[in-house]
Amino acid sequence: MYLLDVKCIFAAFIKSEIMSNGLLQGKKGIIFGALDDKSIAWKVAEKCHEQGAKIILTNAPVALRFGGIYELAEKLNTKVVGADATKVEDLENLLKESMEFLGGKVDFILHSIGMSLNVRKKREYTDLNYEWMQTTFDISAISFHKLMQTAMKLDAVNDWGSIVALSYMAAQRTFPDYNEMAEAKSLLESFARSFGYHYGKKAKVRVNTISQSPTVTTAGSGVKGFGDFFDYADKMSPLGNASAEACADYCVTMFSDLTRMVTMQNLFHDGGFSSMGMAPEILDK
Amino acid sequence: MYLLDVKCIFAAFIKSEIMSNGLLQGKKGIIFGALDDKSIAWKVAEKCHEQGAKIILTNAPVALRFGGIYELAEKLNTKVVGADATKVEDLENLLKESMEFLGGKVDFILHSIGMSLNVRKKREYTDLNYEWMQTTFDISAISFHKLMQTAMKLDAVNDWGSIVALSYMAAQRTFPDYNEMAEAKSLLESFARSFGYHYGKKAKVRVNTISQSPTVTTAGSGVKGFGDFFDYADKMSPLGNASAEACADYCVTMFSDLTRMVTMQNLFHDGGFSSMGMAPEILDK
Amino acid sequence: MYLLDVKCIFAAFIKSEIMSNGLLQGKKGIIFGALDDKSIAWKVAEKCHEQGAKIILTNAPVALRFGGIYELAEKLNTKVVGADATKVEDLENLLKESMEFLGGKVDFILHSIGMSLNVRKKREYTDLNYEWMQTTFDISAISFHKLMQTAMKLDAVNDWGSIVALSYMAAQRTFPDYNEMAEAKSLLESFARSFGYHYGKKAKVRVNTISQSPTVTTAGSGVKGFGDFFDYADKMSPLGNASAEACADYCVTMFSDLTRMVTMQNLFHDGGFSSMGMAPEILDK
Amino acid sequence: MYLLDVKCIFAAFIKSEIMSNGLLQGKKGIIFGALDDKSIAWKVAEKCHEQGAKIILTNAPVALRFGGIYELAEKLNTKVVGADATKVEDLENLLKESMEFLGGKVDFILHSIGMSLNVRKKREYTDLNYEWMQTTFDISAISFHKLMQTAMKLDAVNDWGSIVALSYMAAQRTFPDYNEMAEAKSLLESFARSFGYHYGKKAKVRVNTISQSPTVTTAGSGVKGFGDFFDYADKMSPLGNASAEACADYCVTMFSDLTRMVTMQNLFHDGGFSSMGMAPEILDK
Repeated sequence: MYLLDVKCIFAAFIKSEIMSNGLLQGKKGIIFGALDDKSIAWKVAEKCHEQGAKIILTNAPVALRFGGIYELAEKLNTKVVGADATKVEDLENLLKESMEFLGGKVDFILHSIGMSLNVRKKREYTDLNYEWMQTTFDISAISFHKLMQTAMKLDAVNDWGSIVALSYMAAQRTFPDYNEMAEAKSLLESFARSFGYHYGKKAKVRVNTISQSPTVTTAGSGVKGFGDFFDYADKMSPLGNASAEACADYCVTMFSDLTRMVTMQNLFHDGGFSSMGMAPEILDK
Repeated sequence: MYLLDVKCIFAAFIKSEIMSNGLLQGKKGIIFGALDDKSIAWKVAEKCHEQGAKIILTNAPVALRFGGIYELAEKLNTKVVGADATKVEDLENLLKESMEFLGGKVDFILHSIGMSLNVRKKREYTDLNYEWMQTTFDISAISFHKLMQTAMKLDAVNDWGSIVALSYMAAQRTFPDYNEMAEAKSLLESFARSFGYHYGKKAKVRVNTISQSPTVTTAGSGVKGFGDFFDYADKMSPLGNASAEACADYCVTMFSDLTRMVTMQNLFHDGGFSSMGMAPEILDK
Repeated sequence: MYLLDVKCIFAAFIKSEIMSNGLLQGKKGIIFGALDDKSIAWKVAEKCHEQGAKIILTNAPVALRFGGIYELAEKLNTKVVGADATKVEDLENLLKESMEFLGGKVDFILHSIGMSLNVRKKREYTDLNYEWMQTTFDISAISFHKLMQTAMKLDAVNDWGSIVALSYMAAQRTFPDYNEMAEAKSLLESFARSFGYHYGKKAKVRVNTISQSPTVTTAGSGVKGFGDFFDYADKMSPLGNASAEACADYCVTMFSDLTRMVTMQNLFHDGGFSSMGMAPEILDK
Repeated sequence: MYLLDVKCIFAAFIKSEIMSNGLLQGKKGIIFGALDDKSIAWKVAEKCHEQGAKIILTNAPVALRFGGIYELAEKLNTKVVGADATKVEDLENLLKESMEFLGGKVDFILHSIGMSLNVRKKREYTDLNYEWMQTTFDISAISFHKLMQTAMKLDAVNDWGSIVALSYMAAQRTFPDYNEMAEAKSLLESFARSFGYHYGKKAKVRVNTISQSPTVTTAGSGVKGFGDFFDYADKMSPLGNASAEACADYCVTMFSDLTRMVTMQNLFHDGGFSSMGMAPEILDK
């Protein structure tokens, strides 16, 4: 009997070894933005779970209606807490519920939220609606500050915790079709740097952004001419475009204890695109 | 008679040569943000005038009340058109009046506008009021997009025109006391890049930001601990901090035809501060 | 008997879990630059071993004489292959011996080599000896190109392998006491970008530099005024200076399969220093 | 008679106004690298002369044989002093002769020197000849340090002088066909930053690099696939590629007193290329 038990446990151990390194064993996290199985956040949630973390899923009420997230929650043995990330009271509620459900402060948070009304409504960058722009910034960037300010006030993140937001290179260079989302990402990355200082001083919490390749997600595909651009970026990048899954792997390292001293950085995860001036492959077309 | 006239003109010519190189001869411009004679915008207006440009001065209605700007207008033989830069209709009016007064489209514009409610009201960066933040962004950054969008719609800028906004290095690195103005400047610089693409394609208009040393202005001094920081930056910069007057000289080059191919750039005008990692002078204190 | 064995294995498993996540299980690597137990390379070697990698140690013949590296080799159950990294034939020999000893191509390489003759001999930056400078560049930077060119010719790195060189922020900003090492690091980082393109296209190998905090090593301490500077950087960094051990952890993530799409990057591992403009802590002194 | 004279002078004045603003009136400079009338340095020499500067021309002995430079010297009423910029004694001689001929210390210097043996001899980046690389670095980058070190020792530059070297964006991003010149330019820009600190502290001399668009010069065209790349960059840049003539205009501003506080910067003069992520114009091909 005893022998058998040991074997079972051991086998289970071996099995989990195949998928995981237990890098996030014992850690607790909150993942924003999983919509469906194409979402980067979805992959991040799965990978964090595999690596031993306990997580809470959250998304905006309107996104919850699509329903996919509940499926994911079931699979990962957790629950979904709806939150409009532009509302401080929703964030407060989310953080409190998370701490209760997870049994303590969290160790990591992924912010994967972005939406542009002007892009959706096909307004040109030289003919923007400024109210919509305000909404874009609020959802895509200011929500990140609100999240961190609320978390700090509630003392919701453990010392040496890690907060990551997903960004895009339009924060540094111009991709005209990306429209006002360029500004939203600049804002997002600035919040990461600024808050990174304060959270670092207060609780050794690090804050970074990951600047990801164009990714085929339900959100990403909304950008005009996405397909052509995706191919261009793929050709320009020596390793090709980074997938959502690879991005999730990278997020795992950023949530692990192996990257504790990396903070206030924007980290390109893009197969080398950001360091290319011009690839001969582009001219060969 | 004729001889006398020639002599007069000639003498005037010689005189202007002493102060000026006529670099902006025949050009027309709009200068935002001259409050008093410490303002960078004030110096820019003076230097542009010296270099032969005709300019219009503008500032927010609330700033006009201080009165200094009218004195400057008189000196520069021009007029003041009040405009709340957050209001598109005010900008439309300003651009139309400017074109009428100056006799055609403008060649250059200086955006020197910045104000943070959270700084004024001494809110910590980890305890921001989000409505105030919105106002900060609107005044300090979104106004720049509004200005350019309105100008483009009115076709108010000549081909090969030059638009400059004043920025600060907090857009790239963290100066905790600068608070949410860091984000405002990131946003501002992003607008310069993005709109620079569109205005470049449309009318060869270039758009840049100048990232200036900390400067003793009525606005700049409002930032907490400004004096100590000013000294620190002065020590850290191999050439010392750049003055408002030097900044005005630099603006002149950016408005002149000698810099036509510089666009979508953030240009550090800071005595070298931005390229310093650490100056031994700092440790020697 | 059988039961006992299982228990032993299981216990060993548990134990290794404490120290390691098996992140580099089955991987083979070469570590340059371990001199003594203060060396970053020394820590990297230990951590890689802990994470399941098989490694070869190497250093310049002159460094081998100090003897510490043999102690490390014994502890990590491996051997030392001496190589002057400025000599292509030495690198060829190293790579061949490594493949033989490790049983195949390598998966990762750490380049942690730097030495400045002008610094050692206390020549000012404005009075450099150019022959010494050439030697400095050859040892500290060109050796990195030689290593990669030789490895590519010998087909010595597995697909999706990872090459990392240790750098310092003097490559971007001026730290006068760092002298000509600033240029050596600029060169090093440029080689990483350029070769990263070629190695990425050829074999999906990624090449990055890690820009580490000032670190108390036998090499690092040689720089003039190191102590004061170390303290300054520590104060300026919200998380404090990153230790050699933390750097080794970060290297492990870069060698693991979780960072496969990060290439041609310079990654700051510095507790936030690189994103700071000015820390109030500095002024408070 | 008198009337006529005045008219003549006046007319001459008007005429010079058309071409010049006397921006460099009274200044003295040294221009490296004018080979023929396509050279950027050639245009810089012409423009500096137009703006009132007195200049000395210099180039390597081997380049002098082409003969064009003597034609330019005659036109600009000056002389040519041959100097191999890799030789300190040649630089000493050049600086001494220049001070003698110009009647005092110089105010500005243009370094426009670059040559890659590996490019010329069509060696791939992954199969470089390291002796040639050393020569490439010596000619294209280390010469810049040698020039400044020699100038500082001879006290050959006036306070508030300006030193500019021409660079290329391959210093930041990878253009595979640019080969080892990428590293040479990284090195060059690093020298500008580092020496900029020392020369700034010593004599308020500023040191910058201008990162120019691909330019059709005798040197530039040598790079593999230059034509296709030129077109690509032209399409990618909202204002198109910057011409040699425009670059010369920009150099004039950098040598003038209007940019005194700009130092240790790399300034992109490229029609916006460096800030573009992707231009729709590229996909439309």
